[in-house]
Amino acid sequence: MFSVEVRDRIMIGHSLPDPFFGPAQHMHGATFVVDVAFFRETLTRQNVVVDIGAALDVLNKTLKPLNYQNLDALPQFKGVLTTTEFLCKHIFDAVAAAARSGALGEDGKGLSKIRVTLHETDLARAAYEGALA
Amino acid sequence: MFSVEVRDRIMIGHSLPDPFFGPAQHMHGATFVVDVAFFRETLTRQNVVVDIGAALDVLNKTLKPLNYQNLDALPQFKGVLTTTEFLCKHIFDAVAAAARSGALGEDGKGLSKIRVTLHETDLARAAYEGALA
Amino acid sequence: MFSVEVRDRIMIGHSLPDPFFGPAQHMHGATFVVDVAFFRETLTRQNVVVDIGAALDVLNKTLKPLNYQNLDALPQFKGVLTTTEFLCKHIFDAVAAAARSGALGEDGKGLSKIRVTLHETDLARAAYEGALA
Amino acid sequence: MFSVEVRDRIMIGHSLPDPFFGPAQHMHGATFVVDVAFFRETLTRQNVVVDIGAALDVLNKTLKPLNYQNLDALPQFKGVLTTTEFLCKHIFDAVAAAARSGALGEDGKGLSKIRVTLHETDLARAAYEGALA
Amino acid sequence: MFSVEVRDRIMIGHSLPDPFFGPAQHMHGATFVVDVAFFRETLTRQNVVVDIGAALDVLNKTLKPLNYQNLDALPQFKGVLTTTEFLCKHIFDAVAAAARSGALGEDGKGLSKIRVTLHETDLARAAYEGALA
Amino acid sequence: MFSVEVRDRIMIGHSLPDPFFGPAQHMHGATFVVDVAFFRETLTRQNVVVDIGAALDVLNKTLKPLNYQNLDALPQFKGVLTTTEFLCKHIFDAVAAAARSGALGEDGKGLSKIRVTLHETDLARAAYEGALA
Repeated sequence: MFSVEVRDRIMIGHSLPDPFFGPAQHMHGATFVVDVAFFRETLTRQNVVVDIGAALDVLNKTLKPLNYQNLDALPQFKGVLTTTEFLCKHIFDAVAAAARSGALGEDGKGLSKIRVTLHETDLARAAYEGALA
Repeated sequence: MFSVEVRDRIMIGHSLPDPFFGPAQHMHGATFVVDVAFFRETLTRQNVVVDIGAALDVLNKTLKPLNYQNLDALPQFKGVLTTTEFLCKHIFDAVAAAARSGALGEDGKGLSKIRVTLHETDLARAAYEGALA
Repeated sequence: MFSVEVRDRIMIGHSLPDPFFGPAQHMHGATFVVDVAFFRETLTRQNVVVDIGAALDVLNKTLKPLNYQNLDALPQFKGVLTTTEFLCKHIFDAVAAAARSGALGEDGKGLSKIRVTLHETDLARAAYEGALA
Repeated sequence: MFSVEVRDRIMIGHSLPDPFFGPAQHMHGATFVVDVAFFRETLTRQNVVVDIGAALDVLNKTLKPLNYQNLDALPQFKGVLTTTEFLCKHIFDAVAAAARSGALGEDGKGLSKIRVTLHETDLARAAYEGALA
Repeated sequence: MFSVEVRDRIMIGHSLPDPFFGPAQHMHGATFVVDVAFFRETLTRQNVVVDIGAALDVLNKTLKPLNYQNLDALPQFKGVLTTTEFLCKHIFDAVAAAARSGALGEDGKGLSKIRVTLHETDLARAAYEGALA
Repeated sequence: MFSVEVRDRIMIGHSLPDPFFGPAQHMHGATFVVDVAFFRETLTRQNVVVDIGAALDVLNKTLKPLNYQNLDALPQFKGVLTTTEFLCKHIFDAVAAAARSGALGEDGKGLSKIRVTLHETDLARAAYEGALA
């Protein structure tokens, strides 16, 4: 199995309004360093998994609506606990949709799976990995 | 598959008394930077894999009896080659037991697997990954 | 010149309400990985610059009132642009005061300078370095 | 499943003569930081996956013919697009052959899989993971 | 003293045609991860050393003519040993000129010094630090 | 001012027999990732601060007598508290002596200063920087 992984980042504000989260119930924020890995069984004609430039571009476009935002104020996250894990899946869904729609080129449609990792501090990170149906 | 990974560290002394290990047969030591990843198929009600604070706490408690110790002098390691690989499994067993016993909260019992990685230098690391029966 | 540098981290929310900051005028947030370096010309009797445990403890106590907070809502930052650079100096002042007051032990009073570095993403960081009068 | 991962590096020149690669069609180059992970289900008699010294030695020998070379000028890569992904597989094949031939010791023959990761910048990396038949 | 440091990267090809460089006399290449730190004694009205976005932009424009190039073929480097150290100074000169010309805004003219660091592998890096006259 | 910095590493055992060190009074150990930076005002004829290969070689020879050793058992450290800070200075002295004796080539004698940094965990490091008289 081959893979290619690219990195971008966002800075967001949010709160986690459930007693479960203790002090993180406050409005606070995070820098998320975001790694997205694309997997495929065999390489394309050009010996790549996916065009790295296109991958970085898709990732950048995916993150743009979140960057420098207060997630609590975004309609798509109304009533949602926007944990790091949730955001991994949110970004996975957007990148997967972009791949299926051809944003990574025709070859992007042959990907087998995608993994999204969000580093929230030097000590903690979350990930979501799923197949590209 | 979702995952959350947290980090802690220990500084230990030990020797590896088997000719296989060459100079590492001497009493020497290591800093192990320890990453523990918890995996689950679906998120909990609070949109998490596991409470990161609880995960860091369980990891800290697991490492405490090893930190600043000479492993050669600990009864539980008598006659054991305490390689980095062995310690990965040792820490895995302790964290898995903690998860099963509820130390990560009720949700910790729904974890599917755990991976423990020990970085011993900037050039070498070992890991153990296993299912949580 | 000897130095010892220790690391901790905070997650905060804030806005930067000046047109200079473009999209960062929004309420957003950041993870700051914080490194504090202590310098002295000669080592103490125990061959250290400062007790690393005490240094980590002072850093942790300094960061606690900021962690998981919305800086815009804290009285001490009313009307202040809480940039990364500003926060470096704010943390420097608190750590320097702690050193002068003996929180790092008697030896902490012999320090010559302190440097505080805040990493805000993988691509950007700020620092403040000053003498300990 | 146990694993051990070791690191080495090469600096190479090459071009990617296909319009797909845009500016990378030029003769340029890269530093590849190379991680090779070895996996096995159970540890050897000495409680290891593989001798780390031997693993570093095999990796170093594998990389030597590539280091400080212009890949375009090497006969084995004539007409080949030497992408990061391709080089992952090339190094995988060489390390796998070394393992099968006993270069990692008799125990090296019991490995189940190998993963080769090449970091090309701080933002991008590729990997190949395969079974050791 | 305050500072802000930003990061970008290039992939280049070159040779070092002097027996001093042994195997690096060959056409080969490197990824340089480039950190540029800007220093000033007091913060601007907006509590910054320099606008991070402008700093990243200046760095990107400075690196663009080098990225994906064979340095041996560039007229400005004819007959020059393009070592990592030399490139640090080359980039320093370009960034310093941009700062003096106002590319970092009026505030950029008040900078006291600049430091350019090039990481060539995980084990080696070079830097040049100089005053901004 | 130009600099070049190279990296190597050691794994050692030791104890710190003074009540000041709390649990670190036990025989334990550490991995030290060691960075040595060499500084000079102007580059040599070959546009370098120092030959990186020679620098790595000098560092490796300096560390060899310490690697995989119990520092408590080495005669040169009898009665010494072998703290991270102390070891920085110990390595500084050895590298400086090597530079003065020509081990870095004739150009090594023109160095102005050297800095030795020892990373003991992901959260703590010490350094010593001094002039090369």
